[in-house]
Amino acid sequence: MQLFFTAHTDGNKAFLDAEETRHCKVLRKNEGDCIQVLNGKGLLMDCVISRLKKDSTELDIINQTHFPRPRTYYFHLYISPTKQNERMEWMLEKAIEAGLDEITFIETAHSEKSRINMGRLEKIAISAIKQSGQYYLPVIHPMTTLDQVHIDGNTLIAHCGDGIKASLMETVYPIKDQSMISVLIGPEGDFSEDEVATILQKGAKAVSLGNSRLRTETAALYCAIMLNGLS
Amino acid sequence: MQLFFTAHTDGNKAFLDAEETRHCKVLRKNEGDCIQVLNGKGLLMDCVISRLKKDSTELDIINQTHFPRPRTYYFHLYISPTKQNERMEWMLEKAIEAGLDEITFIETAHSEKSRINMGRLEKIAISAIKQSGQYYLPVIHPMTTLDQVHIDGNTLIAHCGDGIKASLMETVYPIKDQSMISVLIGPEGDFSEDEVATILQKGAKAVSLGNSRLRTETAALYCAIMLNGLS
Repeated sequence: MQLFFTAHTDGNKAFLDAEETRHCKVLRKNEGDCIQVLNGKGLLMDCVISRLKKDSTELDIINQTHFPRPRTYYFHLYISPTKQNERMEWMLEKAIEAGLDEITFIETAHSEKSRINMGRLEKIAISAIKQSGQYYLPVIHPMTTLDQVHIDGNTLIAHCGDGIKASLMETVYPIKDQSMISVLIGPEGDFSEDEVATILQKGAKAVSLGNSRLRTETAALYCAIMLNGLS
Repeated sequence: MQLFFTAHTDGNKAFLDAEETRHCKVLRKNEGDCIQVLNGKGLLMDCVISRLKKDSTELDIINQTHFPRPRTYYFHLYISPTKQNERMEWMLEKAIEAGLDEITFIETAHSEKSRINMGRLEKIAISAIKQSGQYYLPVIHPMTTLDQVHIDGNTLIAHCGDGIKASLMETVYPIKDQSMISVLIGPEGDFSEDEVATILQKGAKAVSLGNSRLRTETAALYCAIMLNGLS
């Protein structure tokens, strides 16, 4: 069955926005019809359409099922956005399929871009969870400067500069239950030496993502997929 | 330095096609200039432009360096192409970054597409090896029916149906030197039960690619990345 999404519920009522309402109409849904709706926080709600308006829909929640988090680990990706939006959009869709809990876009010394289109990325994320049968919508944060990022022993930094690095596998495997894993991925121009030094000083570990030099979006997906495959 | 590509050499001469010649001109190269050229089979050639013509370029090969294959394994991907070309193109670029030696497009019971644009994919592959610093161009095969695919104990099939499956990691790790690994990825509609049965009867092993259902192109990249990360 086609899935819908809303973050807007109130007691036993749920409300669809203009986009989801348009989706309802494309699928020829009418008042009285049943639809299934995700809330992005583990709930799958069985609903009946009570009012189908021009730009919004009111639903009665008949039943709801709560699904536990699907992964044994929590993956927070920090990434410097690529100049081409398309690359970030592809990456987000694929990283969500593989498993992504939170993503923060970071501004670094060699960043290519200082703004991201949050609205568009949120739509892509909602579409990705619907398509890949997931119940949890990753949290998406707007641009943040690197100095504002929380860094500790659970933080991994993937950089291309010199220095001792273990492979991602050696660093995370076996993935303990309830692990918090954060990975910092820099821009095409990499993190600066100062940035790497500061991040390592705060307790992060440097990791290598294989032998070849990966594009920013590929590096992000590499991490999402490896964590999935190793767990 | 910007890399060029040609499969066309003759003794100590090399020849660029129209596309690469256009590339030369965009970069304002002239007769007498030095350029570096890949042959896609491990060679990096230092060349001097002897004749720059309208749609072709003649080069004198001054020096060449041979690079060994970068991976301890040989990865042959068999994949049913997606309806949207863009998805296959994206997948090919990323799989090459992660490590891909050969790719064959397969026609299966639930295939979405019966033809692929070989020319376009070859261009994407050449661009991907230039960009990711690789010296070996993956071999790309056109559409082949599933019954013509060579299947043996080194073949893995990723399918969503019932049946005993080990994880990809359990199946391949540790990756022995000189391993030949083939993976069959089906269309969005999956392989049919008969196809799976036939393939398993021929000695292939069924693998699971994690918990969530992955799109065809994501599944392919999952394999390329995991093999990279586990080796």
